[in-house]
Amino acid sequence: MNADTYRDRRQKLREAIPEGAILIMGNAAASRNYEDNVYPFRQDSHFLYYVGVSSPGMALLMDVDGDERLFGPAEGPDDIVWVGPMPGVEDHAEAAGVASWGVSEDLRDRVRALAARGDIVHYLPPYRSQRRFALADLLDSDPRTVNLGVSDDLMRAVLAQRMIKGPEEIAEIENAVAVTADMYRAAMAAARSGRSEAEILAVLVVQAAARGVQLAFNPIVTVRGEILHNESYHNTAADGDLMLIDSGAESPGFYASDITRTFPVSGRFSDRQKEIYELVLQAQMAVIDAASPERSNKELHLIAARTIAGGLVDIGLMEGDPDDAVAEGAHALFFPHGIGHMLGLDVHDMEDLGDLVGYPEGEQRSTQFGLSLLRMTRQLEPGFVITVEPGIYFNPVLIDRWQADGLHRGFIRYDRLDALRGFGGVRLEDDVLITQDGCRVLGPQIPKTVDEVEAAVGAGSD
Amino acid sequence: MNADTYRDRRQKLREAIPEGAILIMGNAAASRNYEDNVYPFRQDSHFLYYVGVSSPGMALLMDVDGDERLFGPAEGPDDIVWVGPMPGVEDHAEAAGVASWGVSEDLRDRVRALAARGDIVHYLPPYRSQRRFALADLLDSDPRTVNLGVSDDLMRAVLAQRMIKGPEEIAEIENAVAVTADMYRAAMAAARSGRSEAEILAVLVVQAAARGVQLAFNPIVTVRGEILHNESYHNTAADGDLMLIDSGAESPGFYASDITRTFPVSGRFSDRQKEIYELVLQAQMAVIDAASPERSNKELHLIAARTIAGGLVDIGLMEGDPDDAVAEGAHALFFPHGIGHMLGLDVHDMEDLGDLVGYPEGEQRSTQFGLSLLRMTRQLEPGFVITVEPGIYFNPVLIDRWQADGLHRGFIRYDRLDALRGFGGVRLEDDVLITQDGCRVLGPQIPKTVDEVEAAVGAGSD
Repeated sequence: MNADTYRDRRQKLREAIPEGAILIMGNAAASRNYEDNVYPFRQDSHFLYYVGVSSPGMALLMDVDGDERLFGPAEGPDDIVWVGPMPGVEDHAEAAGVASWGVSEDLRDRVRALAARGDIVHYLPPYRSQRRFALADLLDSDPRTVNLGVSDDLMRAVLAQRMIKGPEEIAEIENAVAVTADMYRAAMAAARSGRSEAEILAVLVVQAAARGVQLAFNPIVTVRGEILHNESYHNTAADGDLMLIDSGAESPGFYASDITRTFPVSGRFSDRQKEIYELVLQAQMAVIDAASPERSNKELHLIAARTIAGGLVDIGLMEGDPDDAVAEGAHALFFPHGIGHMLGLDVHDMEDLGDLVGYPEGEQRSTQFGLSLLRMTRQLEPGFVITVEPGIYFNPVLIDRWQADGLHRGFIRYDRLDALRGFGGVRLEDDVLITQDGCRVLGPQIPKTVDEVEAAVGAGSD
Repeated sequence: MNADTYRDRRQKLREAIPEGAILIMGNAAASRNYEDNVYPFRQDSHFLYYVGVSSPGMALLMDVDGDERLFGPAEGPDDIVWVGPMPGVEDHAEAAGVASWGVSEDLRDRVRALAARGDIVHYLPPYRSQRRFALADLLDSDPRTVNLGVSDDLMRAVLAQRMIKGPEEIAEIENAVAVTADMYRAAMAAARSGRSEAEILAVLVVQAAARGVQLAFNPIVTVRGEILHNESYHNTAADGDLMLIDSGAESPGFYASDITRTFPVSGRFSDRQKEIYELVLQAQMAVIDAASPERSNKELHLIAARTIAGGLVDIGLMEGDPDDAVAEGAHALFFPHGIGHMLGLDVHDMEDLGDLVGYPEGEQRSTQFGLSLLRMTRQLEPGFVITVEPGIYFNPVLIDRWQADGLHRGFIRYDRLDALRGFGGVRLEDDVLITQDGCRVLGPQIPKTVDEVEAAVGAGSD
């Protein structure tokens, strides 16, 4: 994206804030097992949106009606030996179309001068501890309480801009999905009995690494898909297992993809697996068919929930009226999470801004198990990019607890669930752009129907 | 390692501290672009040494003459859905041989009770900002000043234990070197003109990922080796380039390897490249031949420096007396860094404890360019594991600056350096155990002589 894009975004942001100054902080390097051994750098997403520079220790300070200035570290005495000739803050300022620049040391004086003359300094919630120290230092306040001063106005203005994706942002997300498509094709081709989850993880990782991009989050690669956030990779896949992979890459411009596929390690679904898989696919397609600005994300969630509940009644694992089951939350034994979330520069886009992102003014999260995990109920709008990710899981510990507590006995055929204790879970996830009159699944096609998946699994040479 | 190993280590630590209590904090999850999108977890190395448990949010509290207790998070209400049935703090306590355990919520009361009865609470320097908040919260102090209270006694006691590696630790490091040997063989085999640094990086990464271990640090994979800490991967390798790779893996027990190799992308060194390469190899072998408890690491550094200066005089890039050149620091134009550092659970082992690790009581770092970057001057002892990593670099910007400043004109043949402006750099690094009467290079052999390297490069199929 060019300087004009960033300049326009900043201009729009300033127009949305009535008075004061806006401080957008970039990320610092993040220490791993000692200060200088750092994790791969990831820039703050807001900073990327308004400045586009991926370099540690920077900040943008803007008067709402005037001056804007980019700050970054001065060159250190040994930098020429350690990091070589690198772009300086003046180069970054030019690339981002920011007229003025300064070294980090001067930022504090500027911020304190603004505060001294009574200007509000608007800033966003710090999600890293280091940022709390940095903000408190700039503002001459206490890092323990600096979170209390975050700007609601700024959060709302940023959200209003970032939630509507422009064509150049859609292109970045499609680029990220394209990498992920290659990741899935390679992983499916490599899958076979006897191979560890870690070996399949490596097949994913190499696709992103070879393109010089990072993964958008720690992938889930598991034959125990009923554990939703499984980040261990020590199981060995065997024929009969379903492998669930939930992963995403970053585009060169740091936009995320977020894709899930589930496939039989053997390359052939069993009848039972096919039945559950087809039901998840049916739920996903029902949501994609329905997604449009006419719907809220809560409606999409309930479409998936009802499809799943209805299908589970049909195959005899639930009973009673599916609408009643969903209203009472009985389906959440099998589908305990939300249908999806916003996607953009973050895989859960702008999650650092909290429930503001997903919940309309005044609406609280449901306390019902399952629905409480839905990240967004908001009415959809053209330009939203969301994930659509229904799933069905058989979690033995959860089943035992519900059964012991006698929950939803009128809807759940506990007597038939014993045979599914080793089943695992199925989830399917794609990234979807809401358009004026419907939606569009982003990126190239990734094997998803039973036939496509069966053809793709194990297709690689040993 | 079994519970007895950890119990013995803790017992020894308590015996080294005269009074009070010892608090060893584990790491928390580290946020990437919002709070819950976290980097791959890396446990604190001290915590690994004394407890061995790699799980976030834990802490060990020990009276020096009594009770020891492990603290960890209680199971959350939705954990069974998100992370499944996981070992609890009681399971971790059993694995580590810690008799008592509690939930994290109780740690603060315990620490404050100790402080209230006048006990010193010894703790190590926090290298992550999150740790500063956590410590300040436990100690009822201010996160901005909590670093001032770190325990010198505890730092020294931990250092004394961790710097001498036992057989089980050596085995871990050799395991990590073995992974790294596979990384280098694969990278050399894959190297060829037209392939990007990122593609070679991917070849390294996949070796660690497939084994379910992490890399010990962000690898350097570059055809611009004269930049010492080059972590970008966007160049494309061409015939005539030297590729420098500095990388390491972690063992299953989280010990690091740290290896560097440099090789011609074409598979054949030019005469000039061979000349410089052989000189670096000669310097490395001279250090390995000399390394023993009879030597200090500063002596090893100077052996490398003199070998390099002498060799550069021989080939006409320096002139004058090599010993004088080294004494005045002229060689540092070509060899600007130190010969090596401690290696263990951290790639720069215990770097979080500061110069205490490398510098004997009362000795300050040299201010001379080059020597100022030597991380350790300390006398070697049996059981130390150190890196031996000499290098020769031709950094055009540094050469221009020195020449403009007229530095060391009596030693450096600036007139002959123009031809080497595109040369890059050569470094060779191995991991070495100091024994009773010498040293041993750890792990399997990795191609290093000119013949071995030329045979290994490009050996892979396309």
